[in-house]
Amino acid sequence: MTSALRRVLSGEADQMKHVVVLGAGMVGGAMAADLCHDFAVTVVDANRARGAALTDRYPLAFRPADLAHSTAVSQAVADADLVIGAVPGFLGYQTLAAVIAAGKNIVDISFFPEDPFALDDLARQHGVTAVVDCGVAPGLGNLILGYHHAHMNVESFECLVGGLPVGRVWPWAYKAPFSPIDVIEEYTRPARMVVNGEIVVKPALSDAELVTLEPVGVLEAFNTDGLRTLLRTIPAPNMVEKTLRYPGHIELIRVLRASGFFDAAPRLVHGVEVRPLDVTAALLLEQWRLDANEPEFTIMRVRISGTEAGQPQTYTYHLYDQTDPLSGVSSMARTTGYTCTGVARLVLDGTFTRAGICPPEMVGADTACFQRVLAHLVARGVNCRQG
Amino acid sequence: MTSALRRVLSGEADQMKHVVVLGAGMVGGAMAADLCHDFAVTVVDANRARGAALTDRYPLAFRPADLAHSTAVSQAVADADLVIGAVPGFLGYQTLAAVIAAGKNIVDISFFPEDPFALDDLARQHGVTAVVDCGVAPGLGNLILGYHHAHMNVESFECLVGGLPVGRVWPWAYKAPFSPIDVIEEYTRPARMVVNGEIVVKPALSDAELVTLEPVGVLEAFNTDGLRTLLRTIPAPNMVEKTLRYPGHIELIRVLRASGFFDAAPRLVHGVEVRPLDVTAALLLEQWRLDANEPEFTIMRVRISGTEAGQPQTYTYHLYDQTDPLSGVSSMARTTGYTCTGVARLVLDGTFTRAGICPPEMVGADTACFQRVLAHLVARGVNCRQG
Repeated sequence: MTSALRRVLSGEADQMKHVVVLGAGMVGGAMAADLCHDFAVTVVDANRARGAALTDRYPLAFRPADLAHSTAVSQAVADADLVIGAVPGFLGYQTLAAVIAAGKNIVDISFFPEDPFALDDLARQHGVTAVVDCGVAPGLGNLILGYHHAHMNVESFECLVGGLPVGRVWPWAYKAPFSPIDVIEEYTRPARMVVNGEIVVKPALSDAELVTLEPVGVLEAFNTDGLRTLLRTIPAPNMVEKTLRYPGHIELIRVLRASGFFDAAPRLVHGVEVRPLDVTAALLLEQWRLDANEPEFTIMRVRISGTEAGQPQTYTYHLYDQTDPLSGVSSMARTTGYTCTGVARLVLDGTFTRAGICPPEMVGADTACFQRVLAHLVARGVNCRQG
Repeated sequence: MTSALRRVLSGEADQMKHVVVLGAGMVGGAMAADLCHDFAVTVVDANRARGAALTDRYPLAFRPADLAHSTAVSQAVADADLVIGAVPGFLGYQTLAAVIAAGKNIVDISFFPEDPFALDDLARQHGVTAVVDCGVAPGLGNLILGYHHAHMNVESFECLVGGLPVGRVWPWAYKAPFSPIDVIEEYTRPARMVVNGEIVVKPALSDAELVTLEPVGVLEAFNTDGLRTLLRTIPAPNMVEKTLRYPGHIELIRVLRASGFFDAAPRLVHGVEVRPLDVTAALLLEQWRLDANEPEFTIMRVRISGTEAGQPQTYTYHLYDQTDPLSGVSSMARTTGYTCTGVARLVLDGTFTRAGICPPEMVGADTACFQRVLAHLVARGVNCRQG
């Protein structure tokens, strides 16, 4: 029994900060496990089996609740000192709104499609710190850009990022750590980027190029719509985010897209209304499922160029992380979750206190915050280094 | 008005042979048009619009009837001197059986999955000549092999054949002159071939190889299950049929197949039972549809090796045919239909009289029959030549 749990059980919990983790999925679970040794942690999810799997292994509490209802969210966070948001994307925005309305600070990784700044006034009114998009990408890349933007004149920002299986199996050479329908969304949503100071929208899958990134080798990068808050917060004249896959994958995706397999409009097939996208997602779910114990990795390269102290300057960061062979925690959960728990600690101990909607670039703008999050990642074996 | 129609209308029809064409599809229509100048032709189909399109253009009669009912078939052929079978594959066998039971000679291009020899006894009992699989492939290739088998010791037979659009458009580089679900059937049915005297079954799409065939250039050939009756009738120790596509097409098909897009088992997708194959066929129907006036071609290479008069001998036949730019009749309809009408004339004038199920290799075994069919094709601009 850890000291934290002992204190929880012995009634000393009121002396510890209480963190409520909303969502007991792969990343939510990893974050709860990371936080429970230093804080009193309660995980909330509708799925009791997930809760039991966590309480069996870690000194934390589980509370079953259906987070699709905002009142359930309000009740769940009522006595929280900080909330971690880790619900599915489609629930992300309403959950964030409910937490802010409850007056609770939150650090969130729920990758929702809505504009978080629509909640900025509400967060300021409640004096709430709400760090959004706080995973690896979006997340860590924003943090790095925020740091350098505070110290130099950034002329270009490029983030290449991908989560891939170590084994490269025909035909897809890909496994999805999250739902294929969300991956397909990445493959179909037009990508916004900044070119010479203007926001430019390009088709999904455009500008595919081969890049060599060690230790993996040749990968294919293509435009995705990952800049999100940076389009508003960072006035750099050139910014682009690209997703990485093994070469060949994207051509197959292009073929499916061009042939209608991603169509979301229902069509009548032998008298039955069906969306091709749903059938495709169901088939690819099986094709793209990681096998038990199959190792995967997350790779990211962030390149920032501009002028610093009057001199041309380029910074390049490399991240490579694999599934933890001991715990079995995926690199996706590690890189996403530990960026989030790193920032969560900054909010919990009062290092980061800005009220309002705060994407990670606002956290990284503070040198102490930036350095502490990188050190937090390194302490967990997630190496994000310059070079 | 042609002499044939004038004679039909003036009551002289009873002096002309009467040919009933079952099925007014693309090939059925082309055959009716080819025969109507020399014979009294009646086309039978459930689709009145198809019938009207033919009677508007050609001196022939149309009779609406649903050929899914065997009694309708019997009635339709009651006063025929010869029947041409051109119904969809799934109706082919029962239609053939009904025509034979009615005591009528038939030349058939309906590419049905059942074994035609199951009707051999019935055909012999009725003294009926039933030439089956009498298109281009199966059909013309069988005719050529039948001819050479009668004159030499055949050691190997290879038939490469494909129907393709002239324009090669990403991603499929393919258009289907018939239903995609039938094309997919070719891509999934295991392929039987003869290797060293044994029947060997290989997976569909296997043994893909690049071949250069003028005037097209590089094409990709892969095993398909096209030998059919030859497996029974010709004792050559090595026989294979391969289908031709532009390079790259087959790799995409392999990906779809491996990923379950051709699965015929229903699965539950968002509460609805659906067969992935049906959705895929519906999508590919649109992708693979020839545009109006889009030219296509049929290409075939037949190679027969062995010993003749004690000497090693190899014969190679090349066929290349494009859409007729004047009539708009596709090469598929021309090569398939005119092989069939060539053989039909041999039956009508008593040159080919064998009772029973007769695949085209039995027709080609007779030198006069073989030469007349090739001349019939050449007269219609379908050049199948040695070289």
